[in-house]
Amino acid sequence: MKRHLISAADLTRDDAVLILDTAEELGRLADRPIKKLPTLRGRTVVNLFFEDSTRTRISFEAAAKRLSADVINFSAKGSSVSKGESLKDTALTLEAMGADAVVIRHHDSGAPHRLATSGWIGGSVVNAGDGTHEHPTQALLDAFTLRRRLGDGPGTDLAGRRVTIVGDILHSRVARSNVHLLSTLGAEVTLVAPPTLVPVRTESWPCEVSYDLDAQLAKSDAVMMLRVQRERMNAAYFPTEREYARRYGLSGERMARMPEHAVVMHPGPMNRGMEISAEVADSPRCTAVEQVTNGVSIRMAVLYLLLSGADSGPQPAEPTPASTQTNAPTTTRTEESK
Amino acid sequence: MKRHLISAADLTRDDAVLILDTAEELGRLADRPIKKLPTLRGRTVVNLFFEDSTRTRISFEAAAKRLSADVINFSAKGSSVSKGESLKDTALTLEAMGADAVVIRHHDSGAPHRLATSGWIGGSVVNAGDGTHEHPTQALLDAFTLRRRLGDGPGTDLAGRRVTIVGDILHSRVARSNVHLLSTLGAEVTLVAPPTLVPVRTESWPCEVSYDLDAQLAKSDAVMMLRVQRERMNAAYFPTEREYARRYGLSGERMARMPEHAVVMHPGPMNRGMEISAEVADSPRCTAVEQVTNGVSIRMAVLYLLLSGADSGPQPAEPTPASTQTNAPTTTRTEESK
Amino acid sequence: MKRHLISAADLTRDDAVLILDTAEELGRLADRPIKKLPTLRGRTVVNLFFEDSTRTRISFEAAAKRLSADVINFSAKGSSVSKGESLKDTALTLEAMGADAVVIRHHDSGAPHRLATSGWIGGSVVNAGDGTHEHPTQALLDAFTLRRRLGDGPGTDLAGRRVTIVGDILHSRVARSNVHLLSTLGAEVTLVAPPTLVPVRTESWPCEVSYDLDAQLAKSDAVMMLRVQRERMNAAYFPTEREYARRYGLSGERMARMPEHAVVMHPGPMNRGMEISAEVADSPRCTAVEQVTNGVSIRMAVLYLLLSGADSGPQPAEPTPASTQTNAPTTTRTEESK
Repeated sequence: MKRHLISAADLTRDDAVLILDTAEELGRLADRPIKKLPTLRGRTVVNLFFEDSTRTRISFEAAAKRLSADVINFSAKGSSVSKGESLKDTALTLEAMGADAVVIRHHDSGAPHRLATSGWIGGSVVNAGDGTHEHPTQALLDAFTLRRRLGDGPGTDLAGRRVTIVGDILHSRVARSNVHLLSTLGAEVTLVAPPTLVPVRTESWPCEVSYDLDAQLAKSDAVMMLRVQRERMNAAYFPTEREYARRYGLSGERMARMPEHAVVMHPGPMNRGMEISAEVADSPRCTAVEQVTNGVSIRMAVLYLLLSGADSGPQPAEPTPASTQTNAPTTTRTEESK
Repeated sequence: MKRHLISAADLTRDDAVLILDTAEELGRLADRPIKKLPTLRGRTVVNLFFEDSTRTRISFEAAAKRLSADVINFSAKGSSVSKGESLKDTALTLEAMGADAVVIRHHDSGAPHRLATSGWIGGSVVNAGDGTHEHPTQALLDAFTLRRRLGDGPGTDLAGRRVTIVGDILHSRVARSNVHLLSTLGAEVTLVAPPTLVPVRTESWPCEVSYDLDAQLAKSDAVMMLRVQRERMNAAYFPTEREYARRYGLSGERMARMPEHAVVMHPGPMNRGMEISAEVADSPRCTAVEQVTNGVSIRMAVLYLLLSGADSGPQPAEPTPASTQTNAPTTTRTEESK
Repeated sequence: MKRHLISAADLTRDDAVLILDTAEELGRLADRPIKKLPTLRGRTVVNLFFEDSTRTRISFEAAAKRLSADVINFSAKGSSVSKGESLKDTALTLEAMGADAVVIRHHDSGAPHRLATSGWIGGSVVNAGDGTHEHPTQALLDAFTLRRRLGDGPGTDLAGRRVTIVGDILHSRVARSNVHLLSTLGAEVTLVAPPTLVPVRTESWPCEVSYDLDAQLAKSDAVMMLRVQRERMNAAYFPTEREYARRYGLSGERMARMPEHAVVMHPGPMNRGMEISAEVADSPRCTAVEQVTNGVSIRMAVLYLLLSGADSGPQPAEPTPASTQTNAPTTTRTEESK
């Protein structure tokens, strides 16, 4: 793996499978009496959030703490940033303070990339969502959830699985990250949205585009509903709420037309009655809650893979096949005895 | 003890004495060079605050950290909650992230109860104040302070003690929790307030009601002054400030009419010159500062009793007599050796 | 050292050298695989911030966590403080909760002094910036940076070094703390500012005052540029921005007139193009980034010296010569074995 995680599009198939397999291992911690590993003791993870996102921030915070890292939360609200400090100065400050990883959420697409490639930061940069660009850990947790639900084990990818992503593709970094990651893992992705909510650039994406949800249901292994942002509903390009729910909302009736093994995914929080009916949201086929749990495992895996090797020996530049890597987390024991 | 702490009214006499005795043990930690126990290492305590309350949040945070738990602060301001996420979705998120305890402060009476009984949460729910309903850890720390100040040791309750609670009973969750807990512990409680600030439901509470503070002073072992909420002082049902201070404020002259051993309590922060004179607030008979210290011990005891047994053996469904339980915290050593 | 750190003016030469030497030792931690010492395990450091200052808060937080202290952040915004709670009540609350150190940033000059001398607090008070009064850890990190850059080792002071401080002296606690500390350490300080931005009280300070930056450049070992507060630029006493930059801004051309070994300092965040040109800011002679790194070491040293002795033996009332103290941090091992 590279030193940073900026974009799902940067991940090779083997990178991605390694992350999923590592998350599988680390997720087992939750069953132990002490749910902590000492792996990242003495490391500092900074959550640098220019946009509010309590859910994502807490998920990274919980992940880092389970690996015994120190976590410092830096909300850009009310900080020097709002007094005109540049991203550069903020970055240099965090670097100078010894941050080993900076988890960044930013309203501007490209800010994490700038942070990672600028040379300002010696540690790892993890993109926790930037503008309408990417949200790679969300795509990873989605792939992880999918692999588990569809019954495939460690080492496998999603070859041949059919995933339909439904909603406001135009503004969705979740959709973009998923298109790239799922196709890298071998899945066939179809986007479904009102024509005004499909960006032109999807023409170059590795996926199909459809305007007809009903036509996709029967052939999907998973239907991923995107959250409708309430603040966008009144925009000119947005259908009326009623129209949207009718044509693109997932009702119980629609879910019934999906294959028996197929699942419904949602990144949360769900707008019940809008993009998803309460019946579907609360159905055992809906994985929304598992996705949150899996999010912690995935973020542990990402932080573990990016940080744990840095000071304690050579970091594998080329990921080895996942099958030989599933016991990776146990190598942390050597660190404990230092 | 039950799995949650929602209401002081739910506690049996033995539950309450067990908590007070455990707090007594844990409070001794403060005298040791290292003021931490490893008891809750690897457990995650989430402070879920829908209302600002730095004092209560910090007290729970300090308590959890002294037990080596990881603490995640979740302020509902600026979170998805303010974007319309339901309490249910928030709860499912915290559950999915592996929260072992959720400490909730909410403006709606009943929100903690809903959280605890919904099935959304597998961990423990601790009510840190909900609307005008309850604030059980405040009542526990008050009872603890009272027992210590009146010279009664571990294992005892407050049988026969007379406590007068003075102020805006109508809006006070502190008063409500205290009425229930103190009477469970055998104390005789009298509420004193202007008629407009006494709720009708006090008719069914285990206490007396009086409108005359002076009549209660000589027979009180403790006088507990409630904080006047400045934002309510201009309401139609509220006396003028001057009138309130004159009739219901505790002056030095009034304090002098209390028995020599009797104490003055206040949950803080105090409005000096309003419900309490500066002279009384700074007198050694006023326990306000001890109450804060005791708050940390009580919250440690509550988190300890709710969480420490969960994974490491059977949790006592029926609390055993407190006399055999005072060494409870030392059993955490077994956990350390895992 | 005293129990508190309120003012750089309170430090003796030996106090200051001891802090710099301790910071030198602790700074080496950053090169170890595990960057933590167990020294302050079980101690609680409260960051009590009445003014926003993410950079300073994070620096203290990182420092305390590297010494294994528990850190509680208390922002006075939205707390009881904003509902009229006095500094006294806040202090008593923190004391009652067992805070071992309170790091306070306050908009009122003198608030940390009040906190430290009031008797409200049993632990240590560290001034993290109060009004226009002092910011002693900033001055210490500046002195530390200067000593390192000028090639002087442990045990030495800044005797004979010439430091020019440039900018809005009138409102700068950084300038005030530096004047006192640098002169205590033997340096010769000259303040340069527009006449309207030099306070009358500088007449009694141990420094020179000049209105002509160009005249100072050739004889300075260091030029310290103060940050211009954008909110003050439109005040009547402030020159126009253009005039300020022209007369008091540090350009590449001006930097070229400084001696070859001389450095440019800035407490950050920098207003590029205003008090400092981008060329200078990004030059290797500018120490702004090192100052941030050094800030963590200095704050570790201050917390270490104030807190580590408290429970584990007599605290040296009189600092011993620094040459015998450079191994101070290693004495923490005894604490680890408890």
